[in-house]
Amino acid sequence: MNVPDPAQLSPAQLSPAQLSPARARALFRDGLRVPTSGWSAGFTQANLVALPRDQAYDFLLFAQRNPKPCPVLEVTEPGRVSSAIFGGDLRTDLPAYVVYEHGEPVAEVTDATDFWRDDLVAFLVGCSFTFEAALLEAGVPVRHIEQGRNVPMFRTSIDCRPAGALAGPLVVSMRPMPADQVATAVRVTSRYPAVHGAPVHIGDPSALGIADLASPDFGDAVEVRDGEIPVFWACGVTPQAAVMASRPPFAIGHAPGHMAITDARDSAYLVP
Amino acid sequence: MNVPDPAQLSPAQLSPAQLSPARARALFRDGLRVPTSGWSAGFTQANLVALPRDQAYDFLLFAQRNPKPCPVLEVTEPGRVSSAIFGGDLRTDLPAYVVYEHGEPVAEVTDATDFWRDDLVAFLVGCSFTFEAALLEAGVPVRHIEQGRNVPMFRTSIDCRPAGALAGPLVVSMRPMPADQVATAVRVTSRYPAVHGAPVHIGDPSALGIADLASPDFGDAVEVRDGEIPVFWACGVTPQAAVMASRPPFAIGHAPGHMAITDARDSAYLVP
Repeated sequence: MNVPDPAQLSPAQLSPAQLSPARARALFRDGLRVPTSGWSAGFTQANLVALPRDQAYDFLLFAQRNPKPCPVLEVTEPGRVSSAIFGGDLRTDLPAYVVYEHGEPVAEVTDATDFWRDDLVAFLVGCSFTFEAALLEAGVPVRHIEQGRNVPMFRTSIDCRPAGALAGPLVVSMRPMPADQVATAVRVTSRYPAVHGAPVHIGDPSALGIADLASPDFGDAVEVRDGEIPVFWACGVTPQAAVMASRPPFAIGHAPGHMAITDARDSAYLVP
Repeated sequence: MNVPDPAQLSPAQLSPAQLSPARARALFRDGLRVPTSGWSAGFTQANLVALPRDQAYDFLLFAQRNPKPCPVLEVTEPGRVSSAIFGGDLRTDLPAYVVYEHGEPVAEVTDATDFWRDDLVAFLVGCSFTFEAALLEAGVPVRHIEQGRNVPMFRTSIDCRPAGALAGPLVVSMRPMPADQVATAVRVTSRYPAVHGAPVHIGDPSALGIADLASPDFGDAVEVRDGEIPVFWACGVTPQAAVMASRPPFAIGHAPGHMAITDARDSAYLVP
């Protein structure tokens, strides 16, 4: 049997996991809007926050003080829309964006070109989707992939360390799993410190101020089966929660779960 | 035999390794000027760079882009002279400081109070002295401690990634050791990524543009015995080399090897 060369197939003939970052970004540039969990297997996905240069120091300091939710992978020069790890165009090549004015989401768009400004500095922040392939490989279920949904994300009652004008709550992503898989999940994800690393909390959601796992603040609810434990990781939506809480004049973020697919390899963020 | 309680002894009765960070800082505040390698065992030492708030973003971005030489442990608010991990006074509690104007060292002092400004942001950057206790424990010799000298440091021919107005060469520290200890040294120091981590280079100094191991750019030369291999780690003097190369109007740094002894424990920076 001839195995077709993926490079010769049209995107429609490929599964999302098989698409190169460049081909995935081209689909998003053409208007496709989907959550990116499971896309372009082996390539690192990133959260996007773009802020005017005036606010860039506060953001970088916020990230330095809150490294678990805000691991910075890359920072662009003001006005630049690509970078060493993201060969596409940051204004168009994510599936969806949220535009904020004074902390209020004023638009959700699949193309942010009309809103982009020359003084914007774009921060690419690590995403837990990076370690999901490693979890699956280790036999740990990833429910939102099984169910074809966006990952559930929750604002917590834990405050981040503030920096300048930026403050806000820690946001977490949640993956439920059988109790006997939790140790494996901790072990596997600990090896990816640049993309949130080990869980921040295991078990009781109320300890994080989460009232109802069926009502996430971002993304979709997923099934939690009898005997399963919810496991929580720091989430790269945290910077956007800080934007909403701190109300800087202007910001653009990715729509939660709709990430920047970079050209960097997941393996680049794996520690021994 | 009664073992005296270190807290009851005068500093003069204690070895430097036994001194608490607060007592070590008090000696430096009183004017003692010595390299701090081996002091306050178990407590983390840090490089200091203080820059006006105007240059703080460039510095933080320089650090983000060059994490091996510039692992940022803490950033103060403008004008503040202490921090969560440094209970002393950053203006007085290091053994020695270098004051820079337009990149030129204009003063070397044991008290920087007269030079400190209200708009200075102080960056504490990880230091390889942190993992020296772990090296010694693993049986790896640390020659400059054996010889009672400052660690030898060298400017290399490798450029850091620039950020805004800051650019400059990578600076490295060097520790010579028998060939059969190098693997252990790599393994031990890899576990301290926040304080420079694994070596950046092993062996031939000329590959780093270092002409003569007997003539370090900072610190003291140490003996390299027959059959020993020089092992090079990224060094927190790199930011000061960037200050000298990029000539910002004003900066204060520690005198190389004369570090800020923090209240943080080395174990806080150890990864599994």
